[in-house]
Amino acid sequence: MSETGRMRASVLTAATSLEVQSREIPVPDADQVLVRIEAVGVCGSDVHFYKEGRLGDWVVDEPLILGHESAGVIVAVGSDVDANRVGERVSIEPQRPDPTSRESMAGQYNLDPAMEFYAVPGVDGAFAEYAVIQAHFAHTVPDSVSLEAAALLEPLSVAVATARKAGFTVGSRVLITGAGPIGIITAQVAKAYGAAEIIVTDLDAARREQALRFGATRVIDPSAESVGSLGLDVDAFVDASGAAPAVRSGFGEVRPGGAVVLVGMGASEIPLPVTTIQNNELIVTGIFRYANTWPTAIGLVERGEVDLDALVTGRFPLDEVQQALESTGRSDTLKSIVTPQR
Amino acid sequence: MSETGRMRASVLTAATSLEVQSREIPVPDADQVLVRIEAVGVCGSDVHFYKEGRLGDWVVDEPLILGHESAGVIVAVGSDVDANRVGERVSIEPQRPDPTSRESMAGQYNLDPAMEFYAVPGVDGAFAEYAVIQAHFAHTVPDSVSLEAAALLEPLSVAVATARKAGFTVGSRVLITGAGPIGIITAQVAKAYGAAEIIVTDLDAARREQALRFGATRVIDPSAESVGSLGLDVDAFVDASGAAPAVRSGFGEVRPGGAVVLVGMGASEIPLPVTTIQNNELIVTGIFRYANTWPTAIGLVERGEVDLDALVTGRFPLDEVQQALESTGRSDTLKSIVTPQR
Amino acid sequence: MSETGRMRASVLTAATSLEVQSREIPVPDADQVLVRIEAVGVCGSDVHFYKEGRLGDWVVDEPLILGHESAGVIVAVGSDVDANRVGERVSIEPQRPDPTSRESMAGQYNLDPAMEFYAVPGVDGAFAEYAVIQAHFAHTVPDSVSLEAAALLEPLSVAVATARKAGFTVGSRVLITGAGPIGIITAQVAKAYGAAEIIVTDLDAARREQALRFGATRVIDPSAESVGSLGLDVDAFVDASGAAPAVRSGFGEVRPGGAVVLVGMGASEIPLPVTTIQNNELIVTGIFRYANTWPTAIGLVERGEVDLDALVTGRFPLDEVQQALESTGRSDTLKSIVTPQR
Amino acid sequence: MSETGRMRASVLTAATSLEVQSREIPVPDADQVLVRIEAVGVCGSDVHFYKEGRLGDWVVDEPLILGHESAGVIVAVGSDVDANRVGERVSIEPQRPDPTSRESMAGQYNLDPAMEFYAVPGVDGAFAEYAVIQAHFAHTVPDSVSLEAAALLEPLSVAVATARKAGFTVGSRVLITGAGPIGIITAQVAKAYGAAEIIVTDLDAARREQALRFGATRVIDPSAESVGSLGLDVDAFVDASGAAPAVRSGFGEVRPGGAVVLVGMGASEIPLPVTTIQNNELIVTGIFRYANTWPTAIGLVERGEVDLDALVTGRFPLDEVQQALESTGRSDTLKSIVTPQR
Repeated sequence: MSETGRMRASVLTAATSLEVQSREIPVPDADQVLVRIEAVGVCGSDVHFYKEGRLGDWVVDEPLILGHESAGVIVAVGSDVDANRVGERVSIEPQRPDPTSRESMAGQYNLDPAMEFYAVPGVDGAFAEYAVIQAHFAHTVPDSVSLEAAALLEPLSVAVATARKAGFTVGSRVLITGAGPIGIITAQVAKAYGAAEIIVTDLDAARREQALRFGATRVIDPSAESVGSLGLDVDAFVDASGAAPAVRSGFGEVRPGGAVVLVGMGASEIPLPVTTIQNNELIVTGIFRYANTWPTAIGLVERGEVDLDALVTGRFPLDEVQQALESTGRSDTLKSIVTPQR
Repeated sequence: MSETGRMRASVLTAATSLEVQSREIPVPDADQVLVRIEAVGVCGSDVHFYKEGRLGDWVVDEPLILGHESAGVIVAVGSDVDANRVGERVSIEPQRPDPTSRESMAGQYNLDPAMEFYAVPGVDGAFAEYAVIQAHFAHTVPDSVSLEAAALLEPLSVAVATARKAGFTVGSRVLITGAGPIGIITAQVAKAYGAAEIIVTDLDAARREQALRFGATRVIDPSAESVGSLGLDVDAFVDASGAAPAVRSGFGEVRPGGAVVLVGMGASEIPLPVTTIQNNELIVTGIFRYANTWPTAIGLVERGEVDLDALVTGRFPLDEVQQALESTGRSDTLKSIVTPQR
Repeated sequence: MSETGRMRASVLTAATSLEVQSREIPVPDADQVLVRIEAVGVCGSDVHFYKEGRLGDWVVDEPLILGHESAGVIVAVGSDVDANRVGERVSIEPQRPDPTSRESMAGQYNLDPAMEFYAVPGVDGAFAEYAVIQAHFAHTVPDSVSLEAAALLEPLSVAVATARKAGFTVGSRVLITGAGPIGIITAQVAKAYGAAEIIVTDLDAARREQALRFGATRVIDPSAESVGSLGLDVDAFVDASGAAPAVRSGFGEVRPGGAVVLVGMGASEIPLPVTTIQNNELIVTGIFRYANTWPTAIGLVERGEVDLDALVTGRFPLDEVQQALESTGRSDTLKSIVTPQR
Repeated sequence: MSETGRMRASVLTAATSLEVQSREIPVPDADQVLVRIEAVGVCGSDVHFYKEGRLGDWVVDEPLILGHESAGVIVAVGSDVDANRVGERVSIEPQRPDPTSRESMAGQYNLDPAMEFYAVPGVDGAFAEYAVIQAHFAHTVPDSVSLEAAALLEPLSVAVATARKAGFTVGSRVLITGAGPIGIITAQVAKAYGAAEIIVTDLDAARREQALRFGATRVIDPSAESVGSLGLDVDAFVDASGAAPAVRSGFGEVRPGGAVVLVGMGASEIPLPVTTIQNNELIVTGIFRYANTWPTAIGLVERGEVDLDALVTGRFPLDEVQQALESTGRSDTLKSIVTPQR
């Protein structure tokens, strides 16, 4: 079978150092499938690993394949998996929790401390021609969903997890700080959940424009308006920037009893307005990936409530992963896609 | 009637300046009762107003009667209140929300922005011979509950609100930082809710000893042990200190998906470990007083599950409110009680 | 002022006996407003009272003005109400709970046992030229919402309450039995909440057709298909029929852990499949009016997510309330509106 | 090793027909442990299978080993299990869900439709000298917990699941209909959760007496008092009888917004008071086994808050399983224990 043998993979060998290597095509375990990877989105965390060789406590101390927003076609299955799945177009939920951990048993498998996750030091990701995943985390997508959109179901899953934590529902008033890919997708998701007001802030005018195209009902330039004392009275504030000033400013705009969800990754410690949290009994939490989000995310795309294809601003073969990584975060880039088969 | 006429009240005229004045006995509105105040607990917030003339954004800019942990006997009722209530021993829930506010209608009346609360600038408190309160906030206490305990149902209510937000239940593992009155009462409440482990930290050895007497299963001296990396894996962390080092340290001890409840009042802004909140999806909130807690609190005392009388370490007449305030926070003081009738 | 004086009202004097009487225009209490009633929807409960002189335990033993789905214009206000509200177009939330009841304090004011509700024996309703209501229950509607739609915010509120209890959210699969007005509005609301599948059953082909126009993704004729064993695997089953066979059948279509919400009024006791409830741990509840739903309902109509105007199939002046009542429940009627000013 | 070879097991060959047979000792799979069974509680469902050859839709159509409340000592482990576990005293959680099912992934593994459960046709139970179970469902018990109590952690888990669904907490008022083993254990659990009132009904005076010994604060003879109209105003009603009159009566005693949890197994369909469910928006559900309850249950016994040993009223060797089954349900029996090693 053509899937035994070798494959090409983009490997991070040290900070800022990438090379395409030849690797063994992985062999699926009994409960796994082998996926021919067709599209992989580039995430800010990939960029962190690439630029700094680390992200928080994770350090790249041996060669690592990045990429965890991926989709493709099943080309082989393990012995316990239905062989009819070969040929299915799938989106990969790139995690492998221990199903018997306390957190998994309670339905929070994303919080399992023993998690193995794509593109985190120790576990290779998907900037490669092939990858394996547990069969139930290879989510079949309908034909109407492109494989690029299927790859971007991963960041959409982050937004769905956010929607659940933030309690988005019909009539919600929502503040989102940061109009990068997560902010933009969160705005779309807020709209799909019925939010009445979706207020997005960003320092960059082009990004604010984009937010308006993707569901924002109002955009704010935080350098021009004093976020924190505008009296927005939102039900939920979602930080999608990771920037300390944005994080701090949002708390003051939340109604008593409202929610704050910190999604953007930034400094490990940020001064937060404890008195505001107390006096308004705000419910503050963060997002660490997702659990049980793919069916919801697939439905959102299938029904046209979220448009992921429109987010793609560039495509890069395996040889150009470096360019893909360096494009990310630029004002003219929303989502760069790596295409391992081209 | 003897309750018309004048009364003595301890009035804060400026920071650190108290005097006993003669005031008109207040006349209850149609929906109020007049209470002869027998016992008033001293709270840290009273001390803040006394020492600094302010607390957060509240500034004492005109004479103010402090005291909001109070109990006594109904001596008169407004026109809409059952006259048979005269003579009842009651604990005062010292708040007056607008019952038609969005927050009140949703069951979070403590978060009503239009709240009038005892001993906050603009509304007199209970360091006086008499006070008025809406009839439904004058909670009848059984004979088995002393009036001092009835006064301390107010801080017990804070602990009950904390228990609910923190999700205390059978088997909970709880970390409480700070063994002052709120920490001690919270430990008792945790035990009543079935907590299996109640770990209390305090820098003061005497307070740690007290914590053990009131329900703690383990005490920790944070100057000797490195709270934050002990691997306590608690379900809930409650800060009852307001001290930034304590607040910051606790987050690292919470299990994935666990709760953090910030009760202690301290700096308005504190650096918090955002990455820990995110990676463990901690649920962080604060406590602003309480709603619908008195029935629960009364039951806890009536059934002997919480001992409030044992917290009282000193009693002070109206002339000695200053001494009562200055005793508060000392290592040998748990609760000072002002006794307006003596 | 023209609003002092007398008004015309349609009065139910005994079962099936209605007459238009002259009544005193009510004078608003201090916290009330007087509303000139422009539109009143006819509800199945009005029909019960009209046809049988009773509904459940409520018996019409003295003259009663029916009608509780109403809207109009404020023409006078009580002494505690902002006089600028005169002239506002408002939708009436037709209830008066005791704001100090246990249920009200907990945010469930609709469950207050001391509730006074329009058109329930003892409290007159809105089939009249004028009615009074507490100011905060006279909800201002935007100009884009017609007064007929404003009246129908009441049944929409039932559907919003249902959506919350049933947990409608993005991707929900929903079964609704009964395509009368409540079923139709619930289908629209399910769509607005993001439901992916909205399956509606009705014995009547015309009603099934209407369901498809108002959001149903599939309709079922229960006389042709065996509801209960179709394997629909829905997240929520809402009965909007009150018919025992429909109620019983739906339980078998719910996924493990799913919700059942009984909205339709029918027999006071119905045989329910207890083993199914147990083995699938279904969460079963009912709807009794609503609390805190008007802002959500107004938003749904304002944003065009629910179309209430399209439900109106007939208009009747006060003299023809009997015809309005008798039209209700007919296959060609969705909502009959009484227009007291014409 | 002595655990290879043959064992004795009590086998139900047809309704009312039991025989002790020689069977192969099961060999643990890679993720399983082999447990030498020391104690097995007899459950009402065992009695159903024994007396009628069926329970609901399950039919005994081939020989079946009954018994699912079991504990013992690990004597062998599968290849993936830590060999140091040999010798551990364990309580068996007798279920085997598919960890990748929708329900398992969401933390409701007990509701997985593909569940394999002890002593349900197709899966042998524990009335045998040995049994196998997945390693993470063999819960280690502390030395202070007897193996009989360890076996009874299974029905205690049902009560813990009930407590969670019913929302037992400090101050709860609880009505329990039926003072058999589940009712008695639920009463103990309600006390441990802080319930203030625990009202138990039973037709049998001896059982009512027992309820008082195990935590009930009041007992009621339903043949003497009219349950349903006593105005008990409880927060939660738990049926532990399965008897239709008891089930129906309890609804009327629940406060608005309160909970009903149906635990007792009886008729598959029972007439329920739909109007009461609606008008009081009661939350009605059932219990199907348990998920994530063992740690809580073990703690309750370890801390002495629940006494399981006191429930044991008889012990029976494998040869006398019939007597054990026939003793169950008698007024003088609370729990019969089968002791396979004697």
